[in-house]
Amino acid sequence: MSLDENFLREAIQLATKSLELGGGPFGAVIVKDGQIIGRGHNRVTVDFDPTAHAEVMAIREACKTINDFSLKGATLYTSCEPCPMCLTATYWARIDRIVYGNDRASAASIGFDDSYFYDQVNKKIEERDVLMEQILAEEAFSSFKKWSELEDKTEY
Amino acid sequence: MSLDENFLREAIQLATKSLELGGGPFGAVIVKDGQIIGRGHNRVTVDFDPTAHAEVMAIREACKTINDFSLKGATLYTSCEPCPMCLTATYWARIDRIVYGNDRASAASIGFDDSYFYDQVNKKIEERDVLMEQILAEEAFSSFKKWSELEDKTEY
Repeated sequence: MSLDENFLREAIQLATKSLELGGGPFGAVIVKDGQIIGRGHNRVTVDFDPTAHAEVMAIREACKTINDFSLKGATLYTSCEPCPMCLTATYWARIDRIVYGNDRASAASIGFDDSYFYDQVNKKIEERDVLMEQILAEEAFSSFKKWSELEDKTEY
Repeated sequence: MSLDENFLREAIQLATKSLELGGGPFGAVIVKDGQIIGRGHNRVTVDFDPTAHAEVMAIREACKTINDFSLKGATLYTSCEPCPMCLTATYWARIDRIVYGNDRASAASIGFDDSYFYDQVNKKIEERDVLMEQILAEEAFSSFKKWSELEDKTEY
C-alpha cells in the first residue's frame, strides 16, 4: 500500500467522521516530511462559517503546527478535489502537490456547487452571477502605495 | 456622498490600519440591511494563516454576528478585487454583490499573486503549476454516498 493511499485514506476517514458530527462529507490532511502536520474536516454548518472547508481547516492547523504561513514542500490530501476557494488557499500556502479522491463531478452529483463556482470564477467580471462594481480606485490605491514604500514588511 | 462610497471607505481604512498592524494592505466590510455586520483586515503574516484575507475574516465575523452560514442579501465592500479564494468564499456565503477599490492589476503592481492565481485556477488540472493527482475515487465516494442517503442533514 502506498504512502499516498495511506494519507488519502486518513482524509476519507475524516470526511466520514465529519458526517457523523453534522458537517459536510469532506476531510483533508497536510503532510510534510512524511508527517501529518494538519487535519481538517468540513465545519461550515457546525461553526456557521462558509469558509470552514476541510482543506482550509487543515491548512490553518498545519500552519499553526509549524508556526509559518508557508507550507512549501507540503502535500495536501483531500477526500475531494478542492473547490476554487480551497485550491487558491493551497496556492497562497505554497503547497506543492494535491492528492484527491472524489472529483468536482462527483461533488456535483450529490448537490455541491464546486463545478458551478469554477465556471463563475473563470468568467469575466461582468458576466458573473454575483454583481461586481469597481469604485474609488484612486483612494483605494493609497494603502497599496504605503505598502510598496514600506521598507520593513513581511511579504507573503 | 453615496452609501457605497461610505462603506468602501471603511474597508480602505481597514486596509491602512492593517498595514500599521504588520499585515497586508487589505480591508473589507460586509453590509446587510444597511448595517455593517462584519469587518476584516489581512492577518496572514500576523496569525500565520494564509487564509486570513480581509474578505474571509469579514465573512467569518458577519456569519457569527447573524448566527448563519448564509449571507444572502449582503454586500461585500473590499479595498481590492477579491482573489479567487475570497471570490469563491463570497459565493459559498451566498453574498449578492461586491464593491471593490483596487483591481488585480493594481495588486500585481505591488507584488501580490492574485492575477497569477486566477490564471492557475482557470487552467486544466494537468496544466497547473501545483501537481494534482486523483486516486482511490471509489473509496472516497463512500462518504458522499452516505451524505446523499442521509435524511436529516443541513445542506449549504
